Amino acid sequence: MAKTIYLDYAATTPVDTRVLKAMTPYFSKSFGNASSLHTIGQKARAALENARKEVASLINAEPEEIVFTSGGTESDNLAIKGVAFANKEKKHIITSSIEHMAVMETVEWLERQGWEITILPVDKFGLVDLEKLKGSIRKDTLLVSIMHANNEIGTIENIKEIGKICHDHNVLFHTDAVQTFGKIPIDVKKMNVDLLSASSHKIYGPKGVGCLYVRKGTEIEPILHGGGQESGLRSTTENVAGIIGFAETCRLRKREMKSEAKRLEKIRDKLIKGVLKIEESHLNGHPKYRLPNNANFRFSFIEGESLITQLDFEGVEASTGSACSTRTLEPSHVLLAIGLKPEEAHGSLRLTLGKYTKDSDINYVLRILPKIVKRLRTISPFKGKWE
Amino acid sequence: MAKTIYLDYAATTPVDTRVLKAMTPYFSKSFGNASSLHTIGQKARAALENARKEVASLINAEPEEIVFTSGGTESDNLAIKGVAFANKEKKHIITSSIEHMAVMETVEWLERQGWEITILPVDKFGLVDLEKLKGSIRKDTLLVSIMHANNEIGTIENIKEIGKICHDHNVLFHTDAVQTFGKIPIDVKKMNVDLLSASSHKIYGPKGVGCLYVRKGTEIEPILHGGGQESGLRSTTENVAGIIGFAETCRLRKREMKSEAKRLEKIRDKLIKGVLKIEESHLNGHPKYRLPNNANFRFSFIEGESLITQLDFEGVEASTGSACSTRTLEPSHVLLAIGLKPEEAHGSLRLTLGKYTKDSDINYVLRILPKIVKRLRTISPFKGKWE
Repeated sequence: MAKTIYLDYAATTPVDTRVLKAMTPYFSKSFGNASSLHTIGQKARAALENARKEVASLINAEPEEIVFTSGGTESDNLAIKGVAFANKEKKHIITSSIEHMAVMETVEWLERQGWEITILPVDKFGLVDLEKLKGSIRKDTLLVSIMHANNEIGTIENIKEIGKICHDHNVLFHTDAVQTFGKIPIDVKKMNVDLLSASSHKIYGPKGVGCLYVRKGTEIEPILHGGGQESGLRSTTENVAGIIGFAETCRLRKREMKSEAKRLEKIRDKLIKGVLKIEESHLNGHPKYRLPNNANFRFSFIEGESLITQLDFEGVEASTGSACSTRTLEPSHVLLAIGLKPEEAHGSLRLTLGKYTKDSDINYVLRILPKIVKRLRTISPFKGKWE
Repeated sequence: MAKTIYLDYAATTPVDTRVLKAMTPYFSKSFGNASSLHTIGQKARAALENARKEVASLINAEPEEIVFTSGGTESDNLAIKGVAFANKEKKHIITSSIEHMAVMETVEWLERQGWEITILPVDKFGLVDLEKLKGSIRKDTLLVSIMHANNEIGTIENIKEIGKICHDHNVLFHTDAVQTFGKIPIDVKKMNVDLLSASSHKIYGPKGVGCLYVRKGTEIEPILHGGGQESGLRSTTENVAGIIGFAETCRLRKREMKSEAKRLEKIRDKLIKGVLKIEESHLNGHPKYRLPNNANFRFSFIEGESLITQLDFEGVEASTGSACSTRTLEPSHVLLAIGLKPEEAHGSLRLTLGKYTKDSDINYVLRILPKIVKRLRTISPFKGKWE
């Protein structure tokens, strides 16, 4: 295969070579344990605290409000379980039907431990109904957890307004911002967010690192107990090299994300326009409130998995939806939540663009995809319906 | 400062350059998400499963018994909380008084959630009394968690016998092997271990990665919920580069650890013999059942912190004990547990050797340490007692 076009940037991204360069000295040279009192330990500590400033500044947070974690999943778990266990007098949590599994599975686990969970429906574009949110807040509601943008269909929620509703009702607000952090502007103060989850590997940083923003004064317990690192909120020897890489990518994103978002929106719109020329093709997610790099389609009478296998043969790496859910044969809970039938929810194709995606890549996809769809439809079990 | 001698290998180690070389391609080139179905994702998956085999083989486990985590602390938390929440009908857990904070704080948290904890005392060398262990096992005892070797005083517990006692009583056995894994031979089958925690950065691998060995058939719940990675036991996008590094260091350790342990024991014994020539100096921990790279001393009338600061001035990086506890001013719980008075527990010096420690480094320490001790004693608040 001559050509490989990676269009799965929502699953993960390559580490920016500038980021890798910034990390490298912290593996074998400046390798100290940031909790050690001697010189090499204190050097690691200083680098770590600089990294914290860099990460905080991307979302207008204070450095001491950033807790480094192993990634978005841990951040979601820490936010929700941490707040739940620290505030047991209020046992009601609200979330939405399109959350990432890291939120979904966490609230389901809490439900098994005696908490009460309300799952809000979304409209056909994936937007949470704000009136329904207001209506579901109770006296014992502790926390609302609603993602900033959906990882499958790319819909961006009205976080600022959701946060305002929460605060008007004296409820904490957590948002899973794994798909927006470093991609579109975030201001935790203006957006009324109390807790925000972010991940490094979605924005050209290393895997295995992320953070949770915790607004000052928020009552929260750790989920990893031990030596008391990260102000007692996340024990374990700090992953210094990973954190330095995460901070460096934040620094670069801050500078580059706006112009990149503009460029990506343009080629994404070209992609969407081109793909929708295919007969019986549909866009999933919101046409306007949408991640700059996300396109998600469904094609009647076609299985998403056959589609991505065929695309892979042709050198295009794409996905049907969340990488985290690929091992199940269940239809996507997100696509079901926006009202698709199970057979429609099986037919999705997610193409997510990134900094190395070129206009010519979009042209290539627009050249091969119609042929693949056509071929798959002729061998589809739904063939009869189609012909 | 011309010379720097790092003698804090128990806190952390530099990444072996061979390990870094093995990891590097997985940052920017083979960067796929191991859960993705396309080619680059499946390449990451294959690398990950090879890594699992490598790690398993170091401790005679099956690959499917290895759960990759973010490090030793998470492994301890997962082992203890995971087993506790999965087996709520038995709510008694036994541990020892010299465990790492990752175990201590975890059982204390469980105690606050309604579990019952027994903390076994140790003798003056740090060994757990096996008769007391037997005597404390009850009908509702679920789990015993006792470390393989202590991180401060280096004492190696009789894990095989402890495991046998547990199994004779139908109790699960977890061991925190962070200080032994890759340093001395471990065979989980022969040693009667059900759960074993290990860390990469203590053995020349990267920080932010480790594993939990979970014997097949052990009932255990995840503590990080989400996409269901690691057979559902640890959700989050796998830290592929970190895991590859961990596996590479395991491969190298398997080949090199025996000869290295022999070399380290020899220079460690020279160090101990030399240091004990200083008046009123004492060895903490067991003289025989001891990590090959650990020496831990106390010097009457001296604060450990002053000692390591002075050593740092002279280019020697050492610690008073666990790096994880350096931010508290409390005396070490381990030293108190072996019967030292609080003022004695403040006077400890831990020197831990590693693969880059040379015989000449030991000579240097033996040359400067007596002078430092002498100087500190003349300015000690206990001066009157001393002169």
